[in-house]
Amino acid sequence: MELFAVEGLPEIEPGDDLAAEINARVDLRADDVVCIASTVVSKAEGRIAELAEYPAGPRAREIAANLSGLSGREKDPRFAQAVLEESVELLMESPFLLTETRFGHVGVNAGIDRSNVPGGELLLLPKRPSESAARIRTELPAEQVIITDTCGRPFRYGQRGVAIGWDGMPASRDWRGAIDRDGRQLGVTVQNVIDELAAAANLVAGEADGGTPVIVIRGFEFGDLPGSQNHFRDLETDYVRQALRGWSYNPQGGNA
Amino acid sequence: MELFAVEGLPEIEPGDDLAAEINARVDLRADDVVCIASTVVSKAEGRIAELAEYPAGPRAREIAANLSGLSGREKDPRFAQAVLEESVELLMESPFLLTETRFGHVGVNAGIDRSNVPGGELLLLPKRPSESAARIRTELPAEQVIITDTCGRPFRYGQRGVAIGWDGMPASRDWRGAIDRDGRQLGVTVQNVIDELAAAANLVAGEADGGTPVIVIRGFEFGDLPGSQNHFRDLETDYVRQALRGWSYNPQGGNA
Repeated sequence: MELFAVEGLPEIEPGDDLAAEINARVDLRADDVVCIASTVVSKAEGRIAELAEYPAGPRAREIAANLSGLSGREKDPRFAQAVLEESVELLMESPFLLTETRFGHVGVNAGIDRSNVPGGELLLLPKRPSESAARIRTELPAEQVIITDTCGRPFRYGQRGVAIGWDGMPASRDWRGAIDRDGRQLGVTVQNVIDELAAAANLVAGEADGGTPVIVIRGFEFGDLPGSQNHFRDLETDYVRQALRGWSYNPQGGNA
Repeated sequence: MELFAVEGLPEIEPGDDLAAEINARVDLRADDVVCIASTVVSKAEGRIAELAEYPAGPRAREIAANLSGLSGREKDPRFAQAVLEESVELLMESPFLLTETRFGHVGVNAGIDRSNVPGGELLLLPKRPSESAARIRTELPAEQVIITDTCGRPFRYGQRGVAIGWDGMPASRDWRGAIDRDGRQLGVTVQNVIDELAAAANLVAGEADGGTPVIVIRGFEFGDLPGSQNHFRDLETDYVRQALRGWSYNPQGGNA
């Protein structure tokens, strides 16, 4: 399996044809997986916004006032409003905003980016990233497209690449029923391959000045195991999410 | 960047020289990253155990009785005892055991494996995986070694490869201070590269009958950014862990 970046892409602007820009720079094969950073998909789709578009309601003002008090720095209630409008559930409101986006992804600030936004103040995640992936895929010779983002996670330090949208392949590979070397059945093992592909792509992507937002993965074989489209956890098996529902941050440390 | 599996490794047994088995099958380069599944490191180190070695104390019996009641299947209190002995903190005791291992990794059942254990009932994780990585590295031409495992995570479905030990490289790459294309400073962004390398390796490793536990990553460039050895979160910034301390599972659904 090999990974390489698509070099020489221009700064993407609203209305740009991302697939055409990619096709002009690389000869893709049908079995390639093309990983595209959500930032350029958002820019092409015009998901750029101004804070003035989000007049803050009472809930956003309350959240921002609380965060301002905690951090000692003034937090803009319009930003909190933007996060709320991109989300279906607020999982944590302090010491930062953790939400579930409208398409099921759990992330800080609903994935809204305030750096690297030419011509605007906010870069929102694509509205429906799997639909973006499907649309781009129809214009590429490659039959698999993943829209990637980076985010943090509990227990482990730092961020890593994750998939937020995908098309043309299953999200996960199901090893249940497969047997080990001694002929015993393996335990419950479902491998989320699209997150692993996104993490791999992030290793060659970079984020800053020299960032290359489109990565081609060549030679990945999904294999013969069953696949599924499950990518985000159900609430019923997400005990951490259940725990967060009953918790609130205590700046003095320990549990509230 | 390319990834390939080391083919033809024998079934590893206690006392085997893993580095020699690898060197016999692949010409490694100094800049290769060698990802080794914890299962074969554990086997070589003899981390195979029997349930009879873990006579259950009162806490393990209480945990197992509770899990048995929940699942309707008899749970062995000696297994709970083994998990407790491999752990420094129990984060969840129901509906499954989530703990922090003695080396700082948070996982289900302290990562103890009950499948794929020739000659024993339990396969424990390596005692100090980063020391295992360091020891193997001295016998390989490659200068970077990562010990991998797979585990689940909150919010996202399925498992993915993670690093549990490493040597010869930083765990994470620090983009703070780097600037975006418009010259603005990027937000807080620390990239956990060893987890991303482990996830990438898992894409070509497989888990069952045809599993290849050693993967070579060639052409990865850490680059000039500062690195750090941070890999597991501190409790002070792990709000999910704080939330779990105040939570207990309610089988009727919702929060306790």
